Amino acid sequence: MPDHPPFFVESIGVIHSPFATKEACPIQPAQAAGAAGTVEIFPAFEPGLADIETFSHIHLIYRFDRAGPVRLTTVTFLDDATHGVFATRHPCRPNGLGMSVVRLLRREANVLFVEGLDVLDGTPLVDVKPYFPQFDIVSSATSGWTDGRPVRPKPPGRE
Amino acid sequence: MPDHPPFFVESIGVIHSPFATKEACPIQPAQAAGAAGTVEIFPAFEPGLADIETFSHIHLIYRFDRAGPVRLTTVTFLDDATHGVFATRHPCRPNGLGMSVVRLLRREANVLFVEGLDVLDGTPLVDVKPYFPQFDIVSSATSGWTDGRPVRPKPPGRE
Repeated sequence: MPDHPPFFVESIGVIHSPFATKEACPIQPAQAAGAAGTVEIFPAFEPGLADIETFSHIHLIYRFDRAGPVRLTTVTFLDDATHGVFATRHPCRPNGLGMSVVRLLRREANVLFVEGLDVLDGTPLVDVKPYFPQFDIVSSATSGWTDGRPVRPKPPGRE
Repeated sequence: MPDHPPFFVESIGVIHSPFATKEACPIQPAQAAGAAGTVEIFPAFEPGLADIETFSHIHLIYRFDRAGPVRLTTVTFLDDATHGVFATRHPCRPNGLGMSVVRLLRREANVLFVEGLDVLDGTPLVDVKPYFPQFDIVSSATSGWTDGRPVRPKPPGRE
């Protein structure tokens, strides 16, 4: 198996969102266009933010810190079939890392004001990367098994 | 500082690319349209790949395992100015996580055949996520400070 030993990942900040519970949390950022919040970067990392305010959108990489146990196959909100977890964005995944694209409204020192959050309040942040249209827009991409499946309301009890 | 303790991240696989050295490695996937390779998922995680082959593109999340020491501000290939590392995709970043969108050609059991790699051969993989056009294409996104800066050849000695 791995030649590469496990390594530590530390929080560089915290995401503050309006969503205190999983039930309240939207499923993907595109559904959360109005969900504004802030991304607080710990002061030690603030120099790393220089010029980030020149971008309209950023990727947040964070830890799903309240996800259930890891599972390799799972159902989602889109249909009732089971899919491999790597063919979904489900939180109960190995390493528990999440990624969302949000709109960056402005920066005030170590705080980013953003829109389009789909994460729980208090989620630990591990990285911020600019969204580069030249690399991140893939116009030819297809939707795979999700094609034509509108996002449904969350079925009760389904994570 | 963090309420959240550091956590371990483990490799779920290895990326095999044509690039043995940093000098040979392209800077972003869009430059590497022809760079084919494979993503080997360790057999224990293979069930998590079910249905991934229905997508045309995937995100790879990996560890920059040969990056230099972390720095919070850095120069890049795009210009000679210094930028906050979170306003770049530079490898020398806190937590050392990288992200690339690649084209998925096919899957054979636990091996993904991909195109558009921009990572070093042997890079440890920590997650695979589908590229969802409905969430990941942000047509209105702007290029921030990179706008109008064509990617230049790598200056000698610059990482």
